[in-house]
Amino acid sequence: MFPSDCLPNRRSFLKAGIGLVASAAAITSLALPANAADGNDDSWIIGPRAGYAPQVGTLVSQLHFTRMQVEHNTKGMTTADLDFLLDAKANTIGAMLFHLAAVDHYYALNSFNGMKWNSWPDEEKKKWDAAANLGDAGRKSIKGNSLDFYLNLLHETREHTLAELKKRDDKWLTVVDTEMGMNNYGKWFHVAEHESNHDGQIKFLKSRIPGAKPAGE
Amino acid sequence: MFPSDCLPNRRSFLKAGIGLVASAAAITSLALPANAADGNDDSWIIGPRAGYAPQVGTLVSQLHFTRMQVEHNTKGMTTADLDFLLDAKANTIGAMLFHLAAVDHYYALNSFNGMKWNSWPDEEKKKWDAAANLGDAGRKSIKGNSLDFYLNLLHETREHTLAELKKRDDKWLTVVDTEMGMNNYGKWFHVAEHESNHDGQIKFLKSRIPGAKPAGE
Repeated sequence: MFPSDCLPNRRSFLKAGIGLVASAAAITSLALPANAADGNDDSWIIGPRAGYAPQVGTLVSQLHFTRMQVEHNTKGMTTADLDFLLDAKANTIGAMLFHLAAVDHYYALNSFNGMKWNSWPDEEKKKWDAAANLGDAGRKSIKGNSLDFYLNLLHETREHTLAELKKRDDKWLTVVDTEMGMNNYGKWFHVAEHESNHDGQIKFLKSRIPGAKPAGE
Repeated sequence: MFPSDCLPNRRSFLKAGIGLVASAAAITSLALPANAADGNDDSWIIGPRAGYAPQVGTLVSQLHFTRMQVEHNTKGMTTADLDFLLDAKANTIGAMLFHLAAVDHYYALNSFNGMKWNSWPDEEKKKWDAAANLGDAGRKSIKGNSLDFYLNLLHETREHTLAELKKRDDKWLTVVDTEMGMNNYGKWFHVAEHESNHDGQIKFLKSRIPGAKPAGE
């Protein structure tokens, strides 16, 4: 178990030469270099990121931390894998990936555009509501897509989120939405940990796809 | 969906009189009061907490955010619920709760006591390894316990973690463990998001316990 079986193949994420240092004394700044190539080299380091205010960057590192696990655990999936339905109550892995993009998008509308939760324009609902709500709507309409289809949705929504976060300062994180009972940090931390919530389900389902290898957790 | 179905009954967590303010202008400090009674009143606010260094307190608010969801989703479970095994590969909800306590404990030994990952003394392994590793070992040995048994383990390990975090400053969060490729913030953020990973599985299993209500996600 290293560091826990819940981060399977953690080392496969890591690349050499990321400039990690061994002692606190050697760390002179909280800021860590972002990797221009793929942004993954400091994936397991939570902290400020270049181009963002310090706390916003720390949040960005958290969003990345949970997203990379989802991407890792769905790597190479076929449309059949993505459409696998364990039972009549289950969601497919494909629908959950669409769901993660929808949640990113709706939190962006809410926290960046000031839209009240669930007050989305009809064209937004038409595109995102089935995925946002999952269940019957998702099972009916979300199927037959390739992994790239979902990864593109995840990429587009997240790129928009990151572009908006680049414009915010740390004080913005503290702004409280009294209706939702959350500050902006709470909203986006939820988006991050919510990906882990579904990643746990994705791993559970993945190990039950016919022909799957023995289960991880 | 408010704010997302993945936070079911969010409002049931919230209590009145938590002193939320509506605009950024009214927030003069990042610090928010901790609730002495149960610590839950600011549960959806991510940010500093009284008694901790600012960033350490922010991390504590994240650990609390994901823990409260686990506690909420297991509330009222019987021993039969906790021992429910969906199939031969699955983990029970009870074993997953024990696992969360084990992960908290092992990250504490690692990050506070400086023990190398997996170098635990035999008496530690005897108590925690079955839960830490889950799978066959967990299925064989973790059963027949009440919810309180698991909640006590979670409480004891977390209280120790919080007591240790109280002694740390924000610089400690930035210390990198080159072997694990994580800084201390990364380790404990993982502990937080890892609870969401299993919370997703707990909700999935919960809705499949014989006699369960229709599934959430």
